[in-house]
Amino acid sequence: MTTTENTEGKLVHNQGVTAPLGFRAAGIAAGIKANGKPDLALVFNEGPEYAAAGVFTRNKVKAAPVLWSQQVLKAGMLRAVVLNSGGANACTGPAGFQDTHRTAEELATALSNWGTETGAGEVAVCSTGLIGDRLPMDKLIPAVTEIVHEMGGGMSGGTDAAYAIMTTDTVPKEASFHHEGKWNVGGMAKGAGMLAPSLATMLVVLTTDAVATPAQLDEALRKATRLTFDRLDVDGSCSTNDTVLLLANGASEVAPTQDELDAAVLAVCDDLAGQLMADAEGVTKRVLITVTGAVSEDEALVAARAIARDSLVKTALFGSDPNWGRVLAAVGIAPVELDPDRITVSFNGSPVCVDGVGAPGARDVDLSGADIEVLVDLQLGDGTATIRTTDLSHGYVEENSAYSS
Amino acid sequence: MTTTENTEGKLVHNQGVTAPLGFRAAGIAAGIKANGKPDLALVFNEGPEYAAAGVFTRNKVKAAPVLWSQQVLKAGMLRAVVLNSGGANACTGPAGFQDTHRTAEELATALSNWGTETGAGEVAVCSTGLIGDRLPMDKLIPAVTEIVHEMGGGMSGGTDAAYAIMTTDTVPKEASFHHEGKWNVGGMAKGAGMLAPSLATMLVVLTTDAVATPAQLDEALRKATRLTFDRLDVDGSCSTNDTVLLLANGASEVAPTQDELDAAVLAVCDDLAGQLMADAEGVTKRVLITVTGAVSEDEALVAARAIARDSLVKTALFGSDPNWGRVLAAVGIAPVELDPDRITVSFNGSPVCVDGVGAPGARDVDLSGADIEVLVDLQLGDGTATIRTTDLSHGYVEENSAYSS
Repeated sequence: MTTTENTEGKLVHNQGVTAPLGFRAAGIAAGIKANGKPDLALVFNEGPEYAAAGVFTRNKVKAAPVLWSQQVLKAGMLRAVVLNSGGANACTGPAGFQDTHRTAEELATALSNWGTETGAGEVAVCSTGLIGDRLPMDKLIPAVTEIVHEMGGGMSGGTDAAYAIMTTDTVPKEASFHHEGKWNVGGMAKGAGMLAPSLATMLVVLTTDAVATPAQLDEALRKATRLTFDRLDVDGSCSTNDTVLLLANGASEVAPTQDELDAAVLAVCDDLAGQLMADAEGVTKRVLITVTGAVSEDEALVAARAIARDSLVKTALFGSDPNWGRVLAAVGIAPVELDPDRITVSFNGSPVCVDGVGAPGARDVDLSGADIEVLVDLQLGDGTATIRTTDLSHGYVEENSAYSS
Repeated sequence: MTTTENTEGKLVHNQGVTAPLGFRAAGIAAGIKANGKPDLALVFNEGPEYAAAGVFTRNKVKAAPVLWSQQVLKAGMLRAVVLNSGGANACTGPAGFQDTHRTAEELATALSNWGTETGAGEVAVCSTGLIGDRLPMDKLIPAVTEIVHEMGGGMSGGTDAAYAIMTTDTVPKEASFHHEGKWNVGGMAKGAGMLAPSLATMLVVLTTDAVATPAQLDEALRKATRLTFDRLDVDGSCSTNDTVLLLANGASEVAPTQDELDAAVLAVCDDLAGQLMADAEGVTKRVLITVTGAVSEDEALVAARAIARDSLVKTALFGSDPNWGRVLAAVGIAPVELDPDRITVSFNGSPVCVDGVGAPGARDVDLSGADIEVLVDLQLGDGTATIRTTDLSHGYVEENSAYSS
């Protein structure tokens, strides 16, 4: 994936939401997860500005925190984001929505008591975990006050927060981009299963110390998610809770151009999306499916997604089996323009099918490594798109057959 | 599934394409399969009429035998169907098409020599197996003559044919319907993976001794496949080779009404579809997903299919886990009209979600049996549809990660 070459700056891992100036964060164990691991995170914007934008799941079944945060974001301003793992607070009805509202109120009160006058309407809430259960508010509410006192300004606060939003993730995901040492974008992400278009089972918080309006943030965020999180498709499932937030405080006193901001936000999102793919549930192969030669970029995307979602393609890749016929079968059912006699496929750069017919040696291509590139050329036009996906493994089945029990 | 109650007749298993009068069939080992199992089948219509209709895959990548048989069917007449397992003859280019053509020519010659003047244009060809390899014509051609001499008129010929078309199927699939002892419909099917809409990786041959025109057969076949094979969705994958053929010879001298013919063909297709589901690759659960209360039957079907294809729903069912939130997440992303606060879900008759909120005891519903019914009521209209599917198991991953290797 192209990311940073057009921008003046540097991408760094292991620095997340507190990489930009003027953001604090924390992660603690509130007792929501039965195993006692960290499950509550806070990202706090010290100002002087509080511009914000968000992108949310397109699932019609939206979790209470999504409904809340969408409402709050209409004002284009956030002072804080509170996130919990251990429970999605989805399909919990009006009572679940009240729980979200109360969480925002409690955090606003705690921040006000701590010295920063804050209203509940300036607090976004994110939740992730099992759908359908109420959150344990008796544990969550005292923890919301506690976490305000835990906030740190250094790197460790951001990393603690990245740990606290993990569910089936095995590692925290952080990335930051530093523009000529003058302004910065940082971010953290979680997500392992239910990774699909329209985002994933995924929470992402991005921060920047650039000076930017809500409209500029919104534009940068939509452009970036379209090319990154929206093109990550592990299992075609789309969560009730997906949320990507971008907060800007202007602390650097630098106002980048829209292009500069777009590039920096894209660089961080792209890096985080790659980290999500690498840590997807049960992954044994990191797979890039690229379709070229489609009549449009949209059709290339539809075709690449159809291949990325095909269980027979994914199980073959798990078995390191260059069974290219399944790629043909998968793309053949995609609702795009194609000529079966012109489709050309390569695995890791080796042609396996040329003009719709198997190539010599196709069955001997080595797919035993952890990274697999599938390139499908429809030879019709200029449309190109890449989807990041994974194989379908025993690990995926194991992890997902025992998630709630 | 409702099948036979409106019709005057009886459904019988273990009688297939030779249950109607005037059909012969055979199955032999031609040596296409490396393991020496039966891999060549023949269904022969003795007349006096030769009306026929067919339904084929909607995949744009069509195997050579599909292209051939579609062409042949334009005349609405078939004397024979020759089917092979052990190779799909898909993505094999013009040479693969010539192989199909030659197979039909050889069979026509063998039948003519045997005493029934036949042209290649009266022979349909079906193939199933791995995509992308040429068929071993040196083995296939002599076997085509041999199988003509093996044809039997009794039940055993039909069952031999049903065995010879198996790939990863573990049992042959046959069914027949006997209308008041006066006329009959019989059928055989194969299919285990790649079961999806627009049929499946599936070959089906149906026979009837009723008097019927090609147009009547076509109508009966389209109605029946729409409600049966098109509503069987194991993994969302759609094959390059799917073919369903219906041959009528009028040997009973009874001309049923269209409704009677429709009902009999539907009964046999429905039974065969159930057998395909029960023997799907890696199946440990037979799952019926019914959506009611949609604004139309089409929308009910789209919603049911979205749930049936969701890997997270399917792995949960494999784990006997009543994780109903995944059903909500799956239906929520389906492109249908719905109100998240009115969705009601039950598992095996026990409510797990009422009006979008979890029901008491939902996590305790017992899904340990082999049959699971998922009922989703959208509470918006009268649209209802049922999809047959299966769980997503370790067996599915195992079988499909090692298919070509």
